Amino acid sequence: MKQTPNFSGVIAPVLTPFGEDGSPDLDRFVEHCEWLLEDGCTGLAPFGTTSEGNSIGLDERMELLEELVDAEIEPAKLMPGTGACALSDAVLLCEHAVELGCGGVLMLPPFYYKNPSEEGLFRFFAEVIEEVGDDDLKVYLYHIPPVAQVGFSLPLIERLRREFPNTVVGLKDSSGDWSNTKAILDAFPGFEVFPGSEVFLLDGLRNGAAGCISATANVSARAIRHVFDNWQSSEADRLQGEITALRKAIQAYPMIPVLKAIVAHYREDPAWASLRPPFVEMSEEEAEAAVRQLAEVHGFRLDFARAA
Amino acid sequence: MKQTPNFSGVIAPVLTPFGEDGSPDLDRFVEHCEWLLEDGCTGLAPFGTTSEGNSIGLDERMELLEELVDAEIEPAKLMPGTGACALSDAVLLCEHAVELGCGGVLMLPPFYYKNPSEEGLFRFFAEVIEEVGDDDLKVYLYHIPPVAQVGFSLPLIERLRREFPNTVVGLKDSSGDWSNTKAILDAFPGFEVFPGSEVFLLDGLRNGAAGCISATANVSARAIRHVFDNWQSSEADRLQGEITALRKAIQAYPMIPVLKAIVAHYREDPAWASLRPPFVEMSEEEAEAAVRQLAEVHGFRLDFARAA
Repeated sequence: MKQTPNFSGVIAPVLTPFGEDGSPDLDRFVEHCEWLLEDGCTGLAPFGTTSEGNSIGLDERMELLEELVDAEIEPAKLMPGTGACALSDAVLLCEHAVELGCGGVLMLPPFYYKNPSEEGLFRFFAEVIEEVGDDDLKVYLYHIPPVAQVGFSLPLIERLRREFPNTVVGLKDSSGDWSNTKAILDAFPGFEVFPGSEVFLLDGLRNGAAGCISATANVSARAIRHVFDNWQSSEADRLQGEITALRKAIQAYPMIPVLKAIVAHYREDPAWASLRPPFVEMSEEEAEAAVRQLAEVHGFRLDFARAA
Repeated sequence: MKQTPNFSGVIAPVLTPFGEDGSPDLDRFVEHCEWLLEDGCTGLAPFGTTSEGNSIGLDERMELLEELVDAEIEPAKLMPGTGACALSDAVLLCEHAVELGCGGVLMLPPFYYKNPSEEGLFRFFAEVIEEVGDDDLKVYLYHIPPVAQVGFSLPLIERLRREFPNTVVGLKDSSGDWSNTKAILDAFPGFEVFPGSEVFLLDGLRNGAAGCISATANVSARAIRHVFDNWQSSEADRLQGEITALRKAIQAYPMIPVLKAIVAHYREDPAWASLRPPFVEMSEEEAEAAVRQLAEVHGFRLDFARAA
């Protein structure tokens, strides 16, 4: 079993900007990723749920990832989403991520067929890992039953860890259910567990979590990082209260559209607001009202100058 | 609005055989497809749910389809599954199918994100159709909420038909809910509607359906075709009763594993029984018991010689 964690801290499932023609916008993507690292993110998870990852084609995902590496973002800080319904597509994406030197990959289970058996899911991951056949592959299981419907049970996690102790190294828990996160933390000491929301950051860290991977880190990494850096201080509970309140205020809106609306507003770049179908952007009025509400109640704003 | 139907009759979402190394077995695939057409299928829908379509990579799907065309199966009889979560992947698969001359494509909605808006789904299909930009593209909407979770409402169907009358020409309804199929048939005369099970074949035909697209057509196309060919005869209800009884007996088992077990048994070719994860094959005992039960109670058997 490995000793040093690959990832810890605050990881953003990075938003994917799209250009006028609907294809991913490489320049805005790189700019956003660089800013996130300046703003406090310790790692980046492109092609997560918040990234509209499953709405981005295989070729497009590989091109975007190459763009980040070409821009000299440290590959060790990258944990791209490489899960897919088809084993062969997952192998392709994992191999590509390993070739680029990515520190890890965040893998959804195959999510088309519902209620797969534990044996079937085990075989899926075992075959991907064996086909990739590279010790540099570090898999983070992506548990998000509210969206994927298919998830990871404790016995499945246990079996994958036992069979592939140097490869299956962590998990993102986006169940939204703290008792599930706690059960995983209790069962698997040393496993790199990331709650899928900063709401559970402090509770997580106190129970052995490695950090969090959170949608809202796209717009509030600095404050979340501040909790991570000070979780053992006497201020920790108060700081956690602040990020919890902001998270709850943001998630009162449709998450991906409002995050993009926020970035578009503060970058004064309307193109940022566009989403790929099946998502639809907020109307201008809705977006303005959300930005204003978050600013007035939470003093929330983005400052793209402050980081540099 | 088009006048001549592109497809009618009995269409099989063809099983996909896998080789020892887990990759699709091209020879067995072509052999099975040729046999299905001899056995009574009027069309083939590769890469449907029963085909484990979403477990097959993009490159693999394109290779399998090319293999069918190379084997001189009439492309007009092919309705491959080209839906995908990512718009760009769906465009790729649709363009490929049109280039090969396929009579139609069967398109799932993007199924990762749950509860998408009607507007978002409309935009997805509109963008795919516009990007492909070819009048030869004939789209059959694939409504299968028990698996995909995301489906097609009547207003969405209506809007897509109104906007793309020469492209969005039909629908497969695998809701398993006859009242939904009936509502679609009533609302859209001339739309090529295929219930997703032969249980609804006769009711469907009496209400204007074009035929059925059914998993079990992989092993009982002849009997289903017999109902289709004689639906206006005095024997129709009795014949329908027989195929309904067989369908219900087969679907008492896990559908895809039992269909493959049946083919493996009668072809005396154990390799046919394998599935791709997350599916798991039946045990030998389970498979034998199922084959025996179907033979004893329903006189069911496959005869690969009879068709030729």
